[in-house]
Amino acid sequence: MIEDKNQQRTALSELGEFGLIEHLTKSFKVNQESTIKGIGDDAAVLDFKTKKAVITTDLLVEGVHFDLSYMPLKHLGYKAVIVNLSDVYAMNATATQITVSIAVSNRFPLEAIEELYAGIETAAKLYNVDVVGGDTTSSTSGLLISITALGKADEKDLVYRNGAKSNDLLVVSGDIGGAYLGLQVMEREKQVFKVNPNSQPDLDQYAYIIERQLKPEARKDIVVLLKDLDVKPTSMIDISDGLSSEIIHLCKQSNVGCDLYEEKIPLDPQVISTCEEFNMDSTTIALNGGEDYELLMTISQEDFPKIKANPNLTVIGYMTEESRGMHLVTRSETKIPLKAQGWNSLSE
Amino acid sequence: MIEDKNQQRTALSELGEFGLIEHLTKSFKVNQESTIKGIGDDAAVLDFKTKKAVITTDLLVEGVHFDLSYMPLKHLGYKAVIVNLSDVYAMNATATQITVSIAVSNRFPLEAIEELYAGIETAAKLYNVDVVGGDTTSSTSGLLISITALGKADEKDLVYRNGAKSNDLLVVSGDIGGAYLGLQVMEREKQVFKVNPNSQPDLDQYAYIIERQLKPEARKDIVVLLKDLDVKPTSMIDISDGLSSEIIHLCKQSNVGCDLYEEKIPLDPQVISTCEEFNMDSTTIALNGGEDYELLMTISQEDFPKIKANPNLTVIGYMTEESRGMHLVTRSETKIPLKAQGWNSLSE
Repeated sequence: MIEDKNQQRTALSELGEFGLIEHLTKSFKVNQESTIKGIGDDAAVLDFKTKKAVITTDLLVEGVHFDLSYMPLKHLGYKAVIVNLSDVYAMNATATQITVSIAVSNRFPLEAIEELYAGIETAAKLYNVDVVGGDTTSSTSGLLISITALGKADEKDLVYRNGAKSNDLLVVSGDIGGAYLGLQVMEREKQVFKVNPNSQPDLDQYAYIIERQLKPEARKDIVVLLKDLDVKPTSMIDISDGLSSEIIHLCKQSNVGCDLYEEKIPLDPQVISTCEEFNMDSTTIALNGGEDYELLMTISQEDFPKIKANPNLTVIGYMTEESRGMHLVTRSETKIPLKAQGWNSLSE
Repeated sequence: MIEDKNQQRTALSELGEFGLIEHLTKSFKVNQESTIKGIGDDAAVLDFKTKKAVITTDLLVEGVHFDLSYMPLKHLGYKAVIVNLSDVYAMNATATQITVSIAVSNRFPLEAIEELYAGIETAAKLYNVDVVGGDTTSSTSGLLISITALGKADEKDLVYRNGAKSNDLLVVSGDIGGAYLGLQVMEREKQVFKVNPNSQPDLDQYAYIIERQLKPEARKDIVVLLKDLDVKPTSMIDISDGLSSEIIHLCKQSNVGCDLYEEKIPLDPQVISTCEEFNMDSTTIALNGGEDYELLMTISQEDFPKIKANPNLTVIGYMTEESRGMHLVTRSETKIPLKAQGWNSLSE
């Protein structure tokens, strides 16, 4: 949170809209064979051949989805891409292209937007997606990023939200709750900083959960792993709004119920220790925290032997008849109905 | 500009984010055979089979691209779709799907967002495109609309910006300059209204140019017409930033020059009379006004007989060797270099 007062500042107006787009995208290379024509025409041209195309879009708004007082612009650009790719992987598809639109107020110098694009480019390279289009415009206040991601898959590989069956196992990748707690740590540091701008926070013990918030990853590897294990989930969704909310989506769209076991929910030790420090209940955080970008899926019990030894996948419950409802089974074996607290940006 | 004080106001927070999306999109139907799965999963699923897919995206920001004091929300929704479809048609492709993301401040009641979506739905129906996804979130101020449009075409039919050859004819659809003048009329009425809120503007004589601004159309019909006439343009672009700016794009990307004839530029009589009233030069308006959403193309001279009798297409000049530069040839036969004034949202 220490600002370099000597940093270079080039006004966006010096480049103009066309100049800005050209400047920001000139280093972007096209790698996907499905990209026939990238940036530079009225539209990009893509060729998915015999594959199906998937498309998803997300909007990130300053002051709603991110706070630039602790979110570095490079991380923000990276995360904006990840949020979208995660939706592509949740279809069991391969991400191939993105378009990036930003609205930015003139308070941002060119160098800030370059940082944002550096993050976008880093994510695009790492996940091997081409940036094929976008729009850059001014906003009357703040920064807004709208990304659309495309992917491809063979029809037989696509996994929807509506295929879960009673008795299927409920499985989650990685661990959850970290991103939300990372946000809590940074909100606290922001308040400390306001009171004492010379304080030097020691955040080492929160490194993992802060990274989960500032630089999340999308589970491209899980799509590859499932293919390697020869497991096709019966349904799948990514966890952006919290485990509880996503389970409810799968149940409602598949017309099934669910028993989720509290003791099975995978939590990182940092999540547990930070919950204790903040006097929060780790199960509540896992259920309602959100922004984990892990994959939540249901698999047939027949496939259990294929996944049981895998450290990336945890069975956290099983699906039931719809009439039995959706419940959390607590450590004390009490059944509590699941609620979609989730994260509601329109609630205030 | 007369407000109905009794209109119903439902707070967005009453529905929440999921409820809002469901409410707004429940009447949207899927018509395109290339849409396998629309709204309701992590991503939409599309199948372009042997066709190439085209994709384009545009961002519209309140206070930058539109002013709600004279832009009805329904028209705004309609126009936001048109702006994107126009880019698809500029590839000589058929528009098939859109995704719609909006960021909206809580000052808008549900009924306002319903109006916006009614305009989006009307355009989607009329142009036969499916709404297959999107995102709805809050903003800290104002309204922002981000739309991504998809289309399809056989590879042999695609027209890029870079195919113009020396001696090709420069051709434009419809007439130009109207949208910009319509905006000037409404800006004037807004000032009048501020001084005297009881004034009743008589805008009959400006009906055409106001419609060009508030409810523009995309030239889907021209793509069909070109096919019927068996004419494939050598290059094409849509006119969003002004004729001059678009000619420069075609020239630069095709490595050619251009002579544009002032006397050939198609102007509606209302554009001419309003320019006189506002003491503006109609050629300047046509060159730099923008938002016409007409198609600008180059065609081989061999194809001239096929288009010459068509009232929708006007030859306005011809392409030259690159070394000869890009010029407007005035009525007095003076040559003036073309400049990309365009419309630059980042300039202030």
